[in-house]
Amino acid sequence: MAPALFITFEGIDGAGKSTQARRLAEALRREGHEVVETREPGGSPGAEEIRRLLVEGAPARWSPETEILLFTAARRDHLEKTIAPALARGAVVVCDRFADSTRVYQGARRPGLRPLVDELHARVIGREPDLTILIDMDPETAFHRGLARNTGENRFEEMGLAFQRRLREGFLALAREWPERIVVVDGARAPEELEREILAIVHERLQ
Amino acid sequence: MAPALFITFEGIDGAGKSTQARRLAEALRREGHEVVETREPGGSPGAEEIRRLLVEGAPARWSPETEILLFTAARRDHLEKTIAPALARGAVVVCDRFADSTRVYQGARRPGLRPLVDELHARVIGREPDLTILIDMDPETAFHRGLARNTGENRFEEMGLAFQRRLREGFLALAREWPERIVVVDGARAPEELEREILAIVHERLQ
Repeated sequence: MAPALFITFEGIDGAGKSTQARRLAEALRREGHEVVETREPGGSPGAEEIRRLLVEGAPARWSPETEILLFTAARRDHLEKTIAPALARGAVVVCDRFADSTRVYQGARRPGLRPLVDELHARVIGREPDLTILIDMDPETAFHRGLARNTGENRFEEMGLAFQRRLREGFLALAREWPERIVVVDGARAPEELEREILAIVHERLQ
Repeated sequence: MAPALFITFEGIDGAGKSTQARRLAEALRREGHEVVETREPGGSPGAEEIRRLLVEGAPARWSPETEILLFTAARRDHLEKTIAPALARGAVVVCDRFADSTRVYQGARRPGLRPLVDELHARVIGREPDLTILIDMDPETAFHRGLARNTGENRFEEMGLAFQRRLREGFLALAREWPERIVVVDGARAPEELEREILAIVHERLQ
């Protein structure tokens, strides 16, 4: 039986999540694993449609409550249509962002929102990744990297440095909450070094 | 202070909800009330976008759980952007379908879904209409009326007579659950008679 493993990458914008997720997927494929690369919000045809509602348009178009419902709807579809079937056939799933991002971003918007995120997660998602790589990085560095990208999906990138600092603290707090699942790595290291470190962490979990 | 009142119309497809909602709105306007006519899913720009995800595409494109999350997201946006502001300024809101439709349709799909609908409603919607007019009708008659329409939004219309019978029972069960709020009227009566009956019910609540 192939070693199904659900791995997520988390961290603030510009920390290098997408790059490291891609590098990890390529390394695992070279070792012969089936790897499904995916991302949130999105990752299935329906969830990508919901993503468009979330990332396009004015930043304040949805209230935090509506946004949490839409993120959770997209995550449920992604889990049903992409993640669960891949794990069921023994693939490794490498996902750029998952529920931790919703916990941290919504919590940074308004601390009182975390219970709603948690209740919806418990009710309709009901699972955590097997392993989460949190790429930790100085927000100022990451902020400038983030702004350098031009994806047309600027809602989260444009919230400013103070917000990014709250996000970093939020992610580090989650790592303390889930010390077994979430491994913190230093995003300031050279990408090649970071890739080797992450691959070593994943190899431990694949054994 | 104008007498804010939140009125919803419910019932199976083809029962005459939209017609009677429009007639009621016109009658109340003739009496000098400010009336906001709206509908679900939809009723605000954001909720109308979510509606398109719900009513277009293959019937099985969303799981029941994802669908309930999307309906609730649309309802939250509709409540925030359209219904609550209208009631705050003393308008009468006349809405074609609301939470009762989600309770009944999802319950008819799978009885075990009702708790999820209720939990989400309690958590992020948190209010019921002041008055709900349930237009009750023989499903066979309503079914043929429903098929006669061609809205391009056929997901709910195409589910067949047995399903419509379960819906009717579901709506009548809700009327027993909320005897104060939900008033059952006979959709087989002539539209003009029904209009007068509904207007009389609304006048009682406006006093």
